[in-house]
Amino acid sequence: MAPIFRKFSSPRYADLVVHNGVARWVEVAADSSQDTAGQIHQIFHQMETMLVEIGARKSDFLEVLIFLSDLEDVGFLNTAWDAWIDPENPPSRACVGVRLQGSLRAEFVIQVAVSMT
Amino acid sequence: MAPIFRKFSSPRYADLVVHNGVARWVEVAADSSQDTAGQIHQIFHQMETMLVEIGARKSDFLEVLIFLSDLEDVGFLNTAWDAWIDPENPPSRACVGVRLQGSLRAEFVIQVAVSMT
Amino acid sequence: MAPIFRKFSSPRYADLVVHNGVARWVEVAADSSQDTAGQIHQIFHQMETMLVEIGARKSDFLEVLIFLSDLEDVGFLNTAWDAWIDPENPPSRACVGVRLQGSLRAEFVIQVAVSMT
Repeated sequence: MAPIFRKFSSPRYADLVVHNGVARWVEVAADSSQDTAGQIHQIFHQMETMLVEIGARKSDFLEVLIFLSDLEDVGFLNTAWDAWIDPENPPSRACVGVRLQGSLRAEFVIQVAVSMT
Repeated sequence: MAPIFRKFSSPRYADLVVHNGVARWVEVAADSSQDTAGQIHQIFHQMETMLVEIGARKSDFLEVLIFLSDLEDVGFLNTAWDAWIDPENPPSRACVGVRLQGSLRAEFVIQVAVSMT
Repeated sequence: MAPIFRKFSSPRYADLVVHNGVARWVEVAADSSQDTAGQIHQIFHQMETMLVEIGARKSDFLEVLIFLSDLEDVGFLNTAWDAWIDPENPPSRACVGVRLQGSLRAEFVIQVAVSMT
């Protein structure tokens, strides 16, 4: 079996799972007391930190599944996304409205190509 | 790192991402002014076009995650799905109700096995 | 193309799809007349059965995407999850509230590393 690399800070779930050339992780704002803009910017910043950690770049995103607690936020999301993502190498993306835990405004399910394992 | 092949018509997201033997894409009806039946049929037709493009067949579907804006549409979806999918080689499938953008009735998150990369 | 192994009991969807070292499946309680606790415990039990079938262990989970019909159930879910999952090797996990079919309380979309194919 291809080896699995994990990073995790709690026993409940991994902050990062890498297997067979794909890094999987879920991102929510560390400080969910912030408004939508604050949470989206945190998520982008946290993703950048993770990219550095796994030796990947924005052009390595494969798929991002975005859950918003208020789908009306998609306008703001798109503006921030367009300014952040690599426009030459965007990932596949879905974006839907759901209920999120606590005061979370956004939850991203992410897959990135890596050469780690 | 395994190479990434993308097809995209806008810088916001890829219409197709292929990596390490898996094609990922998200499908919504190109004409979302149509009703549920029209949108579902469009999605199946669009998926067929994509299968041709990536040199895959219906029997190569790995997983389809289906988001419906009205979960009551699952009855119609199932009838259309059963007539369309390869019954000898169906994918894993989840189907849940969420809020979708604009007048979208369905959004499919798709993974298909390919030999492209 | 890497071979695809499927197990399925209906032509509508596969109960299991294995490809390129990853097993994908969707789990809902076989008896959805039970309450949340009953359904969650069924899902864990069903996952254990599947792990045996594919020759995998709890430490091989890559990602679990959890849909709950009532997000208030996340407290119970977490307690049961923490007692069930391998705390040394947890998967990536997202958990959101959506509409589910019939009387389903939870639907899990699962990816596990395997050496089958």
